[in-house]
Amino acid sequence: MIEQFQKLPGVGPKTAQRLALHVLKRPEAEAQALATALIEAKQQVGLCQVCFHFSADPVCEICRNPNRDDSTICVVADSRDVIALEKTREYRGKYHVLGGTIAPMEGIGPEQLHIQPLVQRVSQGTIKEVILAINPSVEGETTTMYVGQLIKPFTRVTRIAFGLPMGGDLEYADEVTLARALEGRRDLD
Amino acid sequence: MIEQFQKLPGVGPKTAQRLALHVLKRPEAEAQALATALIEAKQQVGLCQVCFHFSADPVCEICRNPNRDDSTICVVADSRDVIALEKTREYRGKYHVLGGTIAPMEGIGPEQLHIQPLVQRVSQGTIKEVILAINPSVEGETTTMYVGQLIKPFTRVTRIAFGLPMGGDLEYADEVTLARALEGRRDLD
Repeated sequence: MIEQFQKLPGVGPKTAQRLALHVLKRPEAEAQALATALIEAKQQVGLCQVCFHFSADPVCEICRNPNRDDSTICVVADSRDVIALEKTREYRGKYHVLGGTIAPMEGIGPEQLHIQPLVQRVSQGTIKEVILAINPSVEGETTTMYVGQLIKPFTRVTRIAFGLPMGGDLEYADEVTLARALEGRRDLD
Repeated sequence: MIEQFQKLPGVGPKTAQRLALHVLKRPEAEAQALATALIEAKQQVGLCQVCFHFSADPVCEICRNPNRDDSTICVVADSRDVIALEKTREYRGKYHVLGGTIAPMEGIGPEQLHIQPLVQRVSQGTIKEVILAINPSVEGETTTMYVGQLIKPFTRVTRIAFGLPMGGDLEYADEVTLARALEGRRDLD
């Protein structure tokens, strides 16, 4: 059991041992419940056929929601990013989860990601804007540029702003962030 | 000596004691050199008459530098911000240091800051752009809006971008930063 727990992200030998001892101390019904939850979730949760976000149904709740703006797609690398953006309660459009970023060093090329389905969604002609919300890492930039060029013929393509984080301090910002904040400056309303 | 060291920012009782013991162990010439440096710097370094950045001369090196763009002024709260922006080596214009941000709770109103001299600089008509590079705190936003409205009649006014810092991760960004990153999105080149 300790070995299995250790395979989870962020769980080292000590934490794994603590988790295992906890399970051993509790009634068997609890171990049973955890085991069932793991298997059921794994069996039932797949990827949304439209946006590739995790979903228990063939089409996820966000894609099915009629109150959300159908004409805007926010492209993210990972389902975690959908959850992060949903927490802001600012975005009312749909999503598209690529399932990673282009990383040739790790053998991840465009064909391993859900890029073709995105191009298909966008090529229908009903999408007014695609917002690329991909982390500003080297792989993220590559992916942004690659996807952007592919879908530009069909729609307006924007990307999220990079700059000083809220509550951030110029003095403590790294130089690249400051340079991007300067470069990305906007007219004051 | 320990008491005096403790008045410096970030120096607590223990550090102050460590600094003091260090001085006591070293030759007297070193203590003399530190004391002289303190007094000379304090006597010689004042504020640039033009931009209010720290300067040993009446007009600072940046303001005197003929290779820097005279038509752009970057407005910051503090001399530390000038140093941070200079490190990026991206900005080739001039600066204006306000000397703080508007903070009514602490009794700092616009008249305590170097705002009037900025208005005067800008009203000459030779400034093409003023970039407001003030931290995104409540006081910073107030100051940005106040200064912006004052100088807008004379020139183009921009502000630095707020959003995801470089190397940042959507998943770990706070919600306000993510909301600003979405709101501040730009067309992909």
